[in-house]
Amino acid sequence: MTRADRPTIRDVARAAGVSKGTVSFALNGRPGVSEDTRERILAAARDLGWTPSTKARALSVSRSFAVGLVLAREPELLGADPFFPSFIAGVERTLSDRGQALVLQVVPASEEEAGYRRLAGAGRVDGVFLLDLRVDDPRMALLEELGMPAVSIARPDVPSGFPAVLVDDRPGIAAAVEHLAGLGHRHIAHVAGPAHFLHGSRRRRAFEDALAEAGLPAGPVVEADFSAAGGAAATRALLGADNRPTAIVYSNDLMAIAGLSVAVEHGVAVPADLSVTGFDNTALAAYVTPPLTSVRTDPYRWGRKAAEALLDLIDGGTVDDVPVPAAQLVIRASTAPPPPAVRTEKR
Amino acid sequence: MTRADRPTIRDVARAAGVSKGTVSFALNGRPGVSEDTRERILAAARDLGWTPSTKARALSVSRSFAVGLVLAREPELLGADPFFPSFIAGVERTLSDRGQALVLQVVPASEEEAGYRRLAGAGRVDGVFLLDLRVDDPRMALLEELGMPAVSIARPDVPSGFPAVLVDDRPGIAAAVEHLAGLGHRHIAHVAGPAHFLHGSRRRRAFEDALAEAGLPAGPVVEADFSAAGGAAATRALLGADNRPTAIVYSNDLMAIAGLSVAVEHGVAVPADLSVTGFDNTALAAYVTPPLTSVRTDPYRWGRKAAEALLDLIDGGTVDDVPVPAAQLVIRASTAPPPPAVRTEKR
Repeated sequence: MTRADRPTIRDVARAAGVSKGTVSFALNGRPGVSEDTRERILAAARDLGWTPSTKARALSVSRSFAVGLVLAREPELLGADPFFPSFIAGVERTLSDRGQALVLQVVPASEEEAGYRRLAGAGRVDGVFLLDLRVDDPRMALLEELGMPAVSIARPDVPSGFPAVLVDDRPGIAAAVEHLAGLGHRHIAHVAGPAHFLHGSRRRRAFEDALAEAGLPAGPVVEADFSAAGGAAATRALLGADNRPTAIVYSNDLMAIAGLSVAVEHGVAVPADLSVTGFDNTALAAYVTPPLTSVRTDPYRWGRKAAEALLDLIDGGTVDDVPVPAAQLVIRASTAPPPPAVRTEKR
Repeated sequence: MTRADRPTIRDVARAAGVSKGTVSFALNGRPGVSEDTRERILAAARDLGWTPSTKARALSVSRSFAVGLVLAREPELLGADPFFPSFIAGVERTLSDRGQALVLQVVPASEEEAGYRRLAGAGRVDGVFLLDLRVDDPRMALLEELGMPAVSIARPDVPSGFPAVLVDDRPGIAAAVEHLAGLGHRHIAHVAGPAHFLHGSRRRRAFEDALAEAGLPAGPVVEADFSAAGGAAATRALLGADNRPTAIVYSNDLMAIAGLSVAVEHGVAVPADLSVTGFDNTALAAYVTPPLTSVRTDPYRWGRKAAEALLDLIDGGTVDDVPVPAAQLVIRASTAPPPPAVRTEKR
């Protein structure tokens, strides 16, 4: 029988009117499928002449049919981070289609290693996602020691034998700076994320490189914590300074949107007196006043791709790094040429 | 030995410098704790004279040390819902303190029942949370059949033997309507959430009851989907109508914030021409222009309380419904008296 002729789990699923995940559960004799449904699936498999491949059967024996995500954050921070639910949504899209569950464990930083050891030791998951990469992240070595398949979001700055979803924030930041430089801005500031996170420090580095690339002087950088309150405080610091910037590149939308309202407080008109760019292009970016120029990232797609790669890796496949489209600048009304009267060296 | 004298797991954890969860794992001989840490914990337990209670030991045998959440939503919708990450954050705060994991499964509506059956049959979790309650929700009966402990968020409208976190959205909506009526508004509209969700329909009913209570005529209600785009469309419909309302009560902040920008588009000044209230008091509510009057809910606390109740229930305790503080109106600058020139019956 050729490969093309051989019925697949997908065919059985279609014939029985259920998902591939349910077929997989039923054919592996796992609990949690009603008797009626199991009968219907077995009948469909029989009718189609479906037989399991030996490889698939061998692999399914010690499977937990779940993958894990350990987050060493204060749980409170999850609530303010638009990345997290979108990423989870993408992961769940893939997992749901393949009958897998996600085991989520939020731990104090001091117990991150214990968190991974628990997931591995208890056989609770077949693999894990690596999020929130840090500078010199120790987790790659830990997971190799544990023999736990993993997929990281972005390439770490340490050696890693695991595939990565090749998220790269730099082109998005560079595009924002180029856009502002093209409009005539020469005094551009950055509100950065925390420097111990790779994405925080990479965006900051990209900002500095892009200024140099555009032949502009280094601009002020204020480090904040990605929160609305942090973005507001950073904006107050920048707008209260003697040499006020004509544009601010924020490391995320939440801080940028808070920055818009601080500008109103200070009587600074956006975009006439101050241009503002965000990062993430969150659901609200198009619905604030003025609508926010932002960098469109795609955590939903990254979640899907990461889950596909992880499941393939768990299935014993060789998995390459996963390219994803570069982030794109979405130009809206929060950016415009600087006011003609304002000169950078005015004092 | 009296109860007060007897050392607890908390004492052992403190002495060993680890969390209660890690102690529990180590003392139960579960994998995932490093040898060093286990030694340290056992030494601390020995020094303190700690002995496990028989009840705790019996209970720990067949435990999965995980609880579950099945969401029958399109995964895409998770990304736009500020409730979800805050609730998860609260759940994880409790679970993290007690060494438990969360198993998250997002399924198509057609496979919701199968999702619960899988979690129960595979012994993957010891209990589940019931979110997104629907009118005539069939899950209470399903979980009783499965013998699966559960805690629901809000009281369902069908008989339920499970404890509920007594979330009640009605006082918050009533407070918003009273506030607007007190300012002199007589023509108040509502942008509602989907009617098949209990919280969508309960907020709408609360709106209608509060108008009647205030002696005001029934106002227009537009049903939307809790998204920014849905809120924008509903606002366009209301502002484009002949008899434009002077105030709009939105069923969540996301729709209200989108509504603010639609008002700007239409040349309608908020709050001079139109008052706007949100619901949820999300992180951005204080940082939009004008800052949004909203109803402060507390999904983070609900998540903590729900997880505590669920773990107590799993431990064999009798658990009552969990009262939570009533939602409170937070008055900001998006609400003001109606314009004197505008009369409801102007045509």
